[in-house]
Amino acid sequence: MNDAYLVGAGQSAFGSFPDESYRSLFRTAYERALASTTPAEEASDGVDAVGGLGGADIDEAYIGTLGVGGRQLGLSGPAITEHLGLHGVPCTRVENACAASGYALRQAVMAVRSGMADLVLAGGVEVMTDTSSEATKWWLGVSGETEWERMAGTTFAGVYAQMADAYLREHHVDGEALSRVAVKNHENGAKNPKAQLGFTCSLAEAEHAPVVADPLTLYHCCPTSDGAAAVLVASEDVAEQFDDRVRVAGVGAASDRVGLFQRESYTGIPASSMAAERAYEEADIDPKTVSERLDFAEVHDCFAIAELLAYEDLGFCGPGEAGELLEAGVTALDGDLPVNSSGGLKSKGHPIGATGAGQAVEAFEQLTGRAGDRQIEGAERGLTHNVGGSGGAAVVHVFETDSRATGDGGETSDADVGPGGESA
Amino acid sequence: MNDAYLVGAGQSAFGSFPDESYRSLFRTAYERALASTTPAEEASDGVDAVGGLGGADIDEAYIGTLGVGGRQLGLSGPAITEHLGLHGVPCTRVENACAASGYALRQAVMAVRSGMADLVLAGGVEVMTDTSSEATKWWLGVSGETEWERMAGTTFAGVYAQMADAYLREHHVDGEALSRVAVKNHENGAKNPKAQLGFTCSLAEAEHAPVVADPLTLYHCCPTSDGAAAVLVASEDVAEQFDDRVRVAGVGAASDRVGLFQRESYTGIPASSMAAERAYEEADIDPKTVSERLDFAEVHDCFAIAELLAYEDLGFCGPGEAGELLEAGVTALDGDLPVNSSGGLKSKGHPIGATGAGQAVEAFEQLTGRAGDRQIEGAERGLTHNVGGSGGAAVVHVFETDSRATGDGGETSDADVGPGGESA
Repeated sequence: MNDAYLVGAGQSAFGSFPDESYRSLFRTAYERALASTTPAEEASDGVDAVGGLGGADIDEAYIGTLGVGGRQLGLSGPAITEHLGLHGVPCTRVENACAASGYALRQAVMAVRSGMADLVLAGGVEVMTDTSSEATKWWLGVSGETEWERMAGTTFAGVYAQMADAYLREHHVDGEALSRVAVKNHENGAKNPKAQLGFTCSLAEAEHAPVVADPLTLYHCCPTSDGAAAVLVASEDVAEQFDDRVRVAGVGAASDRVGLFQRESYTGIPASSMAAERAYEEADIDPKTVSERLDFAEVHDCFAIAELLAYEDLGFCGPGEAGELLEAGVTALDGDLPVNSSGGLKSKGHPIGATGAGQAVEAFEQLTGRAGDRQIEGAERGLTHNVGGSGGAAVVHVFETDSRATGDGGETSDADVGPGGESA
Repeated sequence: MNDAYLVGAGQSAFGSFPDESYRSLFRTAYERALASTTPAEEASDGVDAVGGLGGADIDEAYIGTLGVGGRQLGLSGPAITEHLGLHGVPCTRVENACAASGYALRQAVMAVRSGMADLVLAGGVEVMTDTSSEATKWWLGVSGETEWERMAGTTFAGVYAQMADAYLREHHVDGEALSRVAVKNHENGAKNPKAQLGFTCSLAEAEHAPVVADPLTLYHCCPTSDGAAAVLVASEDVAEQFDDRVRVAGVGAASDRVGLFQRESYTGIPASSMAAERAYEEADIDPKTVSERLDFAEVHDCFAIAELLAYEDLGFCGPGEAGELLEAGVTALDGDLPVNSSGGLKSKGHPIGATGAGQAVEAFEQLTGRAGDRQIEGAERGLTHNVGGSGGAAVVHVFETDSRATGDGGETSDADVGPGGESA
């Protein structure tokens, strides 16, 4: 199996952009991903050491989107690559609700591993704030189970509120834990120039904000966002031509019952656990030592409860312990295992199709020392965790600096970059 | 790169099924695909020689659909695998308009080639005849280019009519060629128990039918359909445990400008030519000898003109020669290169997301001697050609009997099956 690497990553700001189209947003992300690559001086073979990568180098593309606001439902993937000038490049639209571009990234990894492509564009985009289209109302609710949830009036906030309620009761946890997620993620997001809600909030503000779906307040819910994110996934041969590269150490995915009411428990997302287990196995991480092996994680915090569940589903702590982990500061930016350094879906924003790729952008930036004020010192390995719907699908990627891979017994290379990117 | 094989294939009938859901339709296709497998007597390792394959053997799933009639837009892939009892299996929805399940199949091949899966379910489904939902109107037009085609009132029949008009003028061809496509495909479809329009039509009937979009008459247009199709794609290790298996000799895909008006020529579909070129290269077929190397083809005849263009784009003949090829009977069921033995989209039907996988079902049946009255004698190699929209995406697969692969220098096997399936 050929190893896959990230060699570039970029995103638009997340927010409300009435003057942008889904194509212009994606183009911004794509151009930033291209510009983020660092061709080594000795680069040859299809890579221009001065100009870096261009569209002509791309063999394959995967675009994740739920429905780009109804503007181009069918063939939106090829409509985007057309706008990028990637004529002829096979482009596949992937849709697994909020996990669309996490799955698009996984397909890109698969394309490289299969030997069918050497350089793959993976990304996602969504336009959600323009509600002028009749179609818009369809996009937002349509990822919930249709017959017994959506048509009965249940929204996503409602579904996650049921999870939150069950969790707080089952583990006798105080609702303050939910607010702590918001406080932490807003603190991180305030350091992220791409964040939609890049401001801090206090525990009291989160706690006493208007209730959206009890027990979730406004600050426990992610915003509605426009945005795009893109990454470049390369084979080893191509990746070796770049100074900054991040190895995809493991990937795992799983589907589950789409309707929450069909699942045995409301206090965990089985698709997340299964996806993580598979990713850890590929990355050679003993599930018992996850916390020690990972330096950071970007988890799917569409609602505050989702971050708490993620801690447990991903093995950062045991059942019912997420609140304590959070309160102890373990998952804070300066903690042992920072979670959502980007601000997460909560503060950075959640343009559905862009979210999974956006998490990979953060991982790339952390692992190449480009995360600015939110840089996690010594970050060498991290994961991204992207959930579709309320857990009908989930996908987990483990990324690591190539220097770490080298240290583990791989080949040495002149182009190795320290975790903080000092040699870049 | 690991070789990929089809070991099973099945489909629902195509037609109008108001009592079925997208899930029940897909389940029918899936169960038929499972039932179609032929475990060798010596089968072991995860395959039950008596009961054959079951869900527990499936590692991965790809579902192609445009929108399942609006019933479950987001996460429709996992909603389907949930209904099949495939809990935990990663399922990805793929959408490239009418090429959705052709691309789903390509992803399945990629998953096997990557080594990440040994047995993959690939298929597609659409529900199109229920127009009770407000959403339905969105599904059917939405794969055309939005701003300058759909919003200007152009339908797919209109887009293909522009191609037909340009083709007839450019090559000074009589419109009768369009009707000959209908006559041939209805003749084949009349032999296919799964066909939606399984009756014959005369040249005069096709010619004098009501005009849908000049020069296309009713008989030059495929119907609106409900239906599902599924195939099982296996690694060599798994495939060896089945008597009937079909090797995926080559696959190629390409995207292009989504809007017809953006393309330089209306008399060819560049995405088809590019996809075919790539598939031929993988299958080691010299583009100049395509007609000799292939025993049959299932091409994307959503409108009669599309079949004529396919002959030329796929290299069966030169520009402007498609009508002659057809009139000479070369592409008839008893010709040298039968095209659309299934009846094609024209007569068999075109449930958007199911079409690409449905073509692979026909290839599997032809290559394992199961095509009944439409069996092509001695069929050992064939292709399927699936187009998204008016050519924004295309994907081509080349399939061959495993005995042919063996004859080409591969290993011999006790389980080899003759092209007509005599030993089965």
